[in-house]
Amino acid sequence: DIHILLLGERRVGKTSLILSLVSEEFPDDVPNRVEEITIPADVTPEKVPTHIVDYSESEQAEYQLCEEVGRANVVCLVYDLTDLSTLEKVKLKWLPLIREFSMQDNMLPVILVGNKSDLIPDSKMYEAVPIMNEYPEIETCIECSSKTLTNVSEMFYFAQKAVLHPTWPLYS
Amino acid sequence: DIHILLLGERRVGKTSLILSLVSEEFPDDVPNRVEEITIPADVTPEKVPTHIVDYSESEQAEYQLCEEVGRANVVCLVYDLTDLSTLEKVKLKWLPLIREFSMQDNMLPVILVGNKSDLIPDSKMYEAVPIMNEYPEIETCIECSSKTLTNVSEMFYFAQKAVLHPTWPLYS
Ligand SMILES: Nc1nc2c(ncn2[C@@H]2O[C@H](COP(=O)(O)OP(=O)(O)OP(=O)(O)O)[C@@H](O)[C@H]2O)c(=O)[nH]1
Ligand SMILES: Nc1nc2c(ncn2[C@@H]2O[C@H](COP(=O)(O)OP(=O)(O)OP(=O)(O)O)[C@@H](O)[C@H]2O)c(=O)[nH]1
Ligand SMILES: [Mg+2]
Ligand SMILES: [Mg+2]
Repeated sequence: DIHILLLGERRVGKTSLILSLVSEEFPDDVPNRVEEITIPADVTPEKVPTHIVDYSESEQAEYQLCEEVGRANVVCLVYDLTDLSTLEKVKLKWLPLIREFSMQDNMLPVILVGNKSDLIPDSKMYEAVPIMNEYPEIETCIECSSKTLTNVSEMFYFAQKAVLHPTWPLYS
Repeated sequence: DIHILLLGERRVGKTSLILSLVSEEFPDDVPNRVEEITIPADVTPEKVPTHIVDYSESEQAEYQLCEEVGRANVVCLVYDLTDLSTLEKVKLKWLPLIREFSMQDNMLPVILVGNKSDLIPDSKMYEAVPIMNEYPEIETCIECSSKTLTNVSEMFYFAQKAVLHPTWPLYS
């Protein structure tokens, strides 16, 4: 089974992304956190049962975050494309924290997710590349919108793919 | 050194992508094919000398294509986001041809590149996912525009990254 954990600053859209995937529509009202969701093997592109785990700083303590990172096979690290301070926090807070808590021999793979693409006119992927350079555990980056459902299922597909076809740095 | 080869149907924008990267502006008139371009190590994000190789069916025979695939470390397989028959050809013609000609023990990594994103209102990445599922040598996909320079250097960065941090399928 695959455990996908969503992390990132408050209000970037973690819970909305999960609910958009499951309901195929944008939820107007979202709780801070949704319970773990299990997607049966036959409806996932890679045909593996997949658990999607939400995280919310407003509801969970740091030891719970540490436990969730320990159980995860991949992290979707979400930032808000309209608020690049959330990308700065990806670099300064979340990626170091994931390294610290993951305790694996291999690095825990990360998908970097720019959400709310409906609110920006053009891609900002160039902002993510320097961070990908610094942290080779970032498999890839993707821009999506839970509001327009753009690239939402693709994001979860990239996460599955990162677990099933992992990348090992040659030089590190 | 890294050899990046651009392949795909005619008129999808291979030569324009290379010239946009090099000149940082969209070339109005492009030849069918440009000569191999070498990017020195110090200006590439991964700090490795990188050769970029164009291909044009109008100017090259199939045996030359076979040779180029043999020398390549990664292929950027380009299609036109405004003409999805070029994506169909990626699946039916180009990916099988790359497998046939690459003759490596490991599969030659491929980056799937949807070009001319300036001409479409929203991402069409969902069209690429079924193909990524079928061909695990596709490391990732990206949408770009050589006209607006959107994600052009990012595309070449993904190609470099695919060579330096390759993916091996766990189950294949
Ligand atoms: N325009 C737009 N708004 C979005 C999108 N995704 C989420 N939002 C809005 O952003 C706000 C925060 O979304 P949440 O899903 O609660 O964010 P979260 O990351 O789960 O936040 P916490 O649980 O507090 O950590 C809500 O008002 C959402 O409606 C999006 O893709 N586009
Ligand atoms: N709007 C738009 N037009 C583009 C873009 N990239 C290329 N074009 C146009 O598409 C046409 C074909 O571009 P080329 O770069 O010659 O394509 P190619 O893949 O090298 O074609 P062949 O050499 O024949 O295989 C030209 O008219 C370009 O100006 C783009 O990103 N946006
Ligand atoms: Mg939430
Ligand atoms: Mg050409």
